[in-house]
Amino acid sequence: MQAWKDYQEKNKDRFLNELLGLLRIPSVSARSEHKEDMKRCAEAVKESLLKAGADKVEIYPTDGHPIVYAEKITDPSRPTVLVYGHYDVQPADPLELWNSGPFEPLIKDGKIYARGSCDDKGQFYMHVKALEIMVQTGSLPTNIKFCIEGEEEIGSPNLGKFVASHKDLLKADVVLISDTAMISMDTPSIDIGVRGLSYIEVEVTGPNRDLHSGVYGGAVANPVTMLAKMIASCHDENNHITIPGFYDDVVESTPEERKLMAAAPFSEEEYKKDLGVSSLWGEKGYTTNERTGIRPTLELNGIWGGYIGEGAKTVLPSKAFAKISARLVPNQSAKKITEKLLKYFKSIAPAGITVKAEEHHGGEPYMTPIDSTAYKAAAKAIEATFGKKPIPVRGGGSIPICSLFEKELGIKIVFMGFGLDSDNLHSPNEKYDIFNFYKGIETIPYFHKFFAETK
Amino acid sequence: MQAWKDYQEKNKDRFLNELLGLLRIPSVSARSEHKEDMKRCAEAVKESLLKAGADKVEIYPTDGHPIVYAEKITDPSRPTVLVYGHYDVQPADPLELWNSGPFEPLIKDGKIYARGSCDDKGQFYMHVKALEIMVQTGSLPTNIKFCIEGEEEIGSPNLGKFVASHKDLLKADVVLISDTAMISMDTPSIDIGVRGLSYIEVEVTGPNRDLHSGVYGGAVANPVTMLAKMIASCHDENNHITIPGFYDDVVESTPEERKLMAAAPFSEEEYKKDLGVSSLWGEKGYTTNERTGIRPTLELNGIWGGYIGEGAKTVLPSKAFAKISARLVPNQSAKKITEKLLKYFKSIAPAGITVKAEEHHGGEPYMTPIDSTAYKAAAKAIEATFGKKPIPVRGGGSIPICSLFEKELGIKIVFMGFGLDSDNLHSPNEKYDIFNFYKGIETIPYFHKFFAETK
Repeated sequence: MQAWKDYQEKNKDRFLNELLGLLRIPSVSARSEHKEDMKRCAEAVKESLLKAGADKVEIYPTDGHPIVYAEKITDPSRPTVLVYGHYDVQPADPLELWNSGPFEPLIKDGKIYARGSCDDKGQFYMHVKALEIMVQTGSLPTNIKFCIEGEEEIGSPNLGKFVASHKDLLKADVVLISDTAMISMDTPSIDIGVRGLSYIEVEVTGPNRDLHSGVYGGAVANPVTMLAKMIASCHDENNHITIPGFYDDVVESTPEERKLMAAAPFSEEEYKKDLGVSSLWGEKGYTTNERTGIRPTLELNGIWGGYIGEGAKTVLPSKAFAKISARLVPNQSAKKITEKLLKYFKSIAPAGITVKAEEHHGGEPYMTPIDSTAYKAAAKAIEATFGKKPIPVRGGGSIPICSLFEKELGIKIVFMGFGLDSDNLHSPNEKYDIFNFYKGIETIPYFHKFFAETK
Repeated sequence: MQAWKDYQEKNKDRFLNELLGLLRIPSVSARSEHKEDMKRCAEAVKESLLKAGADKVEIYPTDGHPIVYAEKITDPSRPTVLVYGHYDVQPADPLELWNSGPFEPLIKDGKIYARGSCDDKGQFYMHVKALEIMVQTGSLPTNIKFCIEGEEEIGSPNLGKFVASHKDLLKADVVLISDTAMISMDTPSIDIGVRGLSYIEVEVTGPNRDLHSGVYGGAVANPVTMLAKMIASCHDENNHITIPGFYDDVVESTPEERKLMAAAPFSEEEYKKDLGVSSLWGEKGYTTNERTGIRPTLELNGIWGGYIGEGAKTVLPSKAFAKISARLVPNQSAKKITEKLLKYFKSIAPAGITVKAEEHHGGEPYMTPIDSTAYKAAAKAIEATFGKKPIPVRGGGSIPICSLFEKELGIKIVFMGFGLDSDNLHSPNEKYDIFNFYKGIETIPYFHKFFAETK
């Protein structure tokens, strides 16, 4: 479609500048001090959708951060695509590791450096601009709805209620999400699965106050030492997870699936070099791609306790804490695994130690059927702009709301992500290639075209 | 000595108020932002010594925080007592656990709540006031010197150089230190030993940046998990320390010594109740008092890594850190143990992980001979004011400079501490009983009297 291409070419600098404006808003959902920034960001998303040509845009307040809804209904008989995305971002710390301000987007070597550039402002905004292109060139072949929430990074605690109570509003034929990555721009791919997530926080208490480590050391269980022992017990010598029942519901991949995965281009040497490690780690019996794709994992996301300032303090701390999360594969239940994790940490509390373990948030794993019309439309769209058929892959991340949409709206999700694994999602110096941003805007209208045709 | 008593009674409110003034200065040696407070505190100590009647007071700058020296020479033929103390304090955090400001001394139920109230401002200041009493009543029977430093809590990195280059200035017959505790005011005791200290910091690096725990989790060694495994390996199932060679130089106490220790009043139930723990912990085969007195220990003083803020962040951290210290008993060498600790942590680094381990500070263990004239003078002084003979005990803490004084000045140290183990040293809500403060001031002149008589 030459008209799409021409319109994009003429407006591409503005598209980029608009995104930079959005990235300047520090919409960190996890931190209460950003409550006003979240509101400001929702307003900015609303404005952008109105300008792009949506008929109706509304901000729905929730018990947490607001949800932005928009729609452009061209003809009720046409198929409807529901675009889901999120305007909230992960906290930016550790700040000292950023080379530029996380909320002062910097363009360098064709990449946009900013928190949220890829996850997910840069990606959902491609859909806003694709809408503008289709509206302005009079070629929107579907009805399109947007549901852009502000709580994805904290587990979408209020989206479920909203979706359940707005089923008619959100009625659609497919959910389209750009919040995943491709293998590379040379090897386009589509995520057909995302892992589920269980996230807990453990608080270990020893003595009722911080003690002098000389006076009491050696006589009272040290909560840091005890927490370390508890964490150390979570993986065995083959790096299998030892939580009782953890693997019970895992459906093993077939040899055929594993063979297909092994065919995807992957260089262990480059992977190690990129991460700066001398050797890789993981569950015995599985390859790196299998470990991050088809296997559940357990990671320590944070730990703290005692004196963590400059210099030395001879203290025997009263408390130690850890944030721990598991990634789950299809057929595992986040609810069940969270219960198992909480139970495990409470059950292994050594004598003289009290353990409090609480749930943060979870999300169920999800798989897209590759024989669905939506998947086929996405594959055709990518082939149209990349000149290559995309490879179906299993992603390691989690998008907790997938199973929610399927359950409440009875429709499938298709992922059409344009990020890269190396985009430093959730890390300092998050980036998004301008090339990928433009490529996504170019590809999305084709999805609408092919999806409309298959209906 | 009625004159001492009368003078103290008439001036006791002023004595207390002067101490409160000193406690208001946040002289935290470990934190560079308190550099000016340290200078201000040294000046205040100087002023107090001048007012108390010292002939000569001088502040000696060092590469770190200054040392305050003072003297009152009554007659060169008389014995000389060198009082050592420190005006620096431990960092006050965690601040949220204090019931009042750590540098806004609060008097409640006869106790002074403030950082440094017991360790060591409240204790060295008793000597300043004892000097005033003896000078004002014309009854100082010794020569007295003061060496009050500002770096005890960070391992006295500059005191060694000062002592070595000022041997004539510091020439004395005994070092007298009030920086330890008694069993209770009903059961007076004298510490005859302090443990040594080795303190290290370990930095564990996995990937070269923080990663998304979904995208990379399960494929790269997590530095928090690896650090936990390393820490967990430091104690075996009997809570013996597993660092190779750790116990090599430990001199086992004789059955007689252990029998004597067992005779000191101790209630395990009260101990547990005070600490709020359901059971105690420690090296198999030893009692609680033995574990904190005659046995070396290894404690985790702090740990941190990854996301430690509010809410959840799904990050696989690049780095994790721990502060770890060992308490040493006589014949162990801090230098050797520190080397063993550093070597151990480097040697157990799992594949894919880099370990950096560095020394913070150390100090050698020390024992006071109970047949020395100084010990006998201290015991007699305590008997004079408490009406009971003190029990000799082994303290768990460390005063790293003891072996230094012995080596450089060739003299013995005697500890005459008036604190309590329950004074929350190094913890929130540090306190010092006003009763103990006054009792110390009352007792110290007797030490000078008896020490002068034995010479």
